[in-house]
Amino acid sequence: MEDRIRLEHGAGGEVMEELLREVVLKTLTLKSAGGIGLDALDDGATIPLGDRHVVFTIDGHTVRPMFFPGGDLGRLAVSGTVNDLAVMGAEPLALANSMIIGEGLETDILVRILKSMDSTAREVPVPIVTGDTKVVEEKIGMFVVTAGVGLAEHPVSDAGSKVGDAVLISGTVGDHGMALMSHREGISFETELKSDVAPIWSVVKAVADEIGWENIHAMKDPTRGGLSNALNEMASKANVGILVREEDIPVRPEVKAASEMLGISPYDVANEGKVVMVVPKEHAEDALEAMRRTERGKEAAMIGEVIEEYRGKVLVSTLIGGRRFLEPPAGDPVPRVC
Amino acid sequence: MEDRIRLEHGAGGEVMEELLREVVLKTLTLKSAGGIGLDALDDGATIPLGDRHVVFTIDGHTVRPMFFPGGDLGRLAVSGTVNDLAVMGAEPLALANSMIIGEGLETDILVRILKSMDSTAREVPVPIVTGDTKVVEEKIGMFVVTAGVGLAEHPVSDAGSKVGDAVLISGTVGDHGMALMSHREGISFETELKSDVAPIWSVVKAVADEIGWENIHAMKDPTRGGLSNALNEMASKANVGILVREEDIPVRPEVKAASEMLGISPYDVANEGKVVMVVPKEHAEDALEAMRRTERGKEAAMIGEVIEEYRGKVLVSTLIGGRRFLEPPAGDPVPRVC
Repeated sequence: MEDRIRLEHGAGGEVMEELLREVVLKTLTLKSAGGIGLDALDDGATIPLGDRHVVFTIDGHTVRPMFFPGGDLGRLAVSGTVNDLAVMGAEPLALANSMIIGEGLETDILVRILKSMDSTAREVPVPIVTGDTKVVEEKIGMFVVTAGVGLAEHPVSDAGSKVGDAVLISGTVGDHGMALMSHREGISFETELKSDVAPIWSVVKAVADEIGWENIHAMKDPTRGGLSNALNEMASKANVGILVREEDIPVRPEVKAASEMLGISPYDVANEGKVVMVVPKEHAEDALEAMRRTERGKEAAMIGEVIEEYRGKVLVSTLIGGRRFLEPPAGDPVPRVC
Repeated sequence: MEDRIRLEHGAGGEVMEELLREVVLKTLTLKSAGGIGLDALDDGATIPLGDRHVVFTIDGHTVRPMFFPGGDLGRLAVSGTVNDLAVMGAEPLALANSMIIGEGLETDILVRILKSMDSTAREVPVPIVTGDTKVVEEKIGMFVVTAGVGLAEHPVSDAGSKVGDAVLISGTVGDHGMALMSHREGISFETELKSDVAPIWSVVKAVADEIGWENIHAMKDPTRGGLSNALNEMASKANVGILVREEDIPVRPEVKAASEMLGISPYDVANEGKVVMVVPKEHAEDALEAMRRTERGKEAAMIGEVIEEYRGKVLVSTLIGGRRFLEPPAGDPVPRVC
């Protein structure tokens, strides 16, 4: 490990994974409550309780700027935690909200962030039942750390993909990261780039209602490090290959344009309102239709399949017949993205 | 409300309470999962689940310096969250750890903080099952936000004090705040001042095993704003008076000396390893003995009683026969205390 922490150590991707594996996981020694624990590096943990599972997750939110096209820090904080519960297969029961505020923050900004948290929580719906407030001298604006508790009958990990399964995505890819980056760089397009930040519990629930929790083999929300990182983690954890077809991965034209202008792949940047889902091939069409019937899943697509070859790797096939590896990024190329 | 957030808005006490009541509680609208919710401003929330209750709590930790006599940021983060669960009557099941790290932090410091979290968690014992890491450009050192999930058969609020009950404290008062302040000011005494930071689940459990959860009417951990703030909140929430006897409140001689030198009351500063407990008078001796049999409760004391007069207020009687109100501080006089 390096002597000092760099920005990339918090940016998702391979550099962060090294920090987590070499420092955090090796230093902590009590890491599981009998279910999925810290060592799994999944989106959350599970705590068996009778015949059900309490799912528990936490995320710090330090996005800059605090208000961006399509969302803000408050909407991101609630969505991020709800989505971590959802991709573990858990119905969100309650959220906790810890705010760390830089001295001098305008009270009005705090109110706007809280209002946004409230309206996002009502969409789910999930109550914000407990919280904490700290004020520090450093001019940090505001950080929001949200934790969530949910209940799952059949928890879903990100490690359960099986050879032959289909890979689905609930909508377009790269919107959040590209919207943030374009906004920061002052680039504008005819169609405004907007973050996709939203809670996706309703999308996940629609699929579970249609095909059953036991038929969702793996889920992940492709946040920091984007789709590339999510698929690589899923391939590596299940020790399978994943093959995706480039032409089937939905990317908005304006996101593609920004991506080309900035030289950043839309697959490598964060999404904040999407789910990658792996299901048996025979349930794939039903799952896809269930997603598409929901408000947030209209542009869902089947993008690939789980294969036996290239275990631990992700392959992309292109229209002209080529194939290349989709490497996990070292870190999300858009800093302070969530 | 003021236009901008000041340090005191995060310092416990009356200024913070105004921010919470006027801004946070008025802006958020979904605040309970059917149990104790955000409006109670208690140490945590409860979520009814069958015949038990999941208890859920979160706390941000921004203490400066990160290492201080008797403890550090890691020990504080684990103890703070375990203690919030304990005073709600919940056995700690699992913790979540969200770290926000300033770019450039030495990896060695991160490891020391994590080691301290680990050894404190093992004392309880409670696993750290999930987490998150963010890195920011601001030179903040490191903030640690911990959330906790516990299980209670009979949750205990801070609002259940009844007239005639006895008020107990599990040990000496003012150690954490005074140790921090003296350390920062470079004041030294013959006996080193040390923070009391420690998990107190074992103390709470010993009392519950002895007298039963149903006989613990109210509990609170006197952190920010100290004993003064905790007792005033308890009196106000239960709409009762609380009378404490100055000569019975345990204060270490070196804490008293520091307190006189700095002009800060030991009752107004944070404790991080204590519990204020209110029990029926007939169980008070048993509760006290149970506390004293534990490692962290040896200096427990019965310090007062719940009275009918002066509802919502706290009175202190002195040896020479005088009585005065113990006012809640505007905020903890020691900044960045937890």
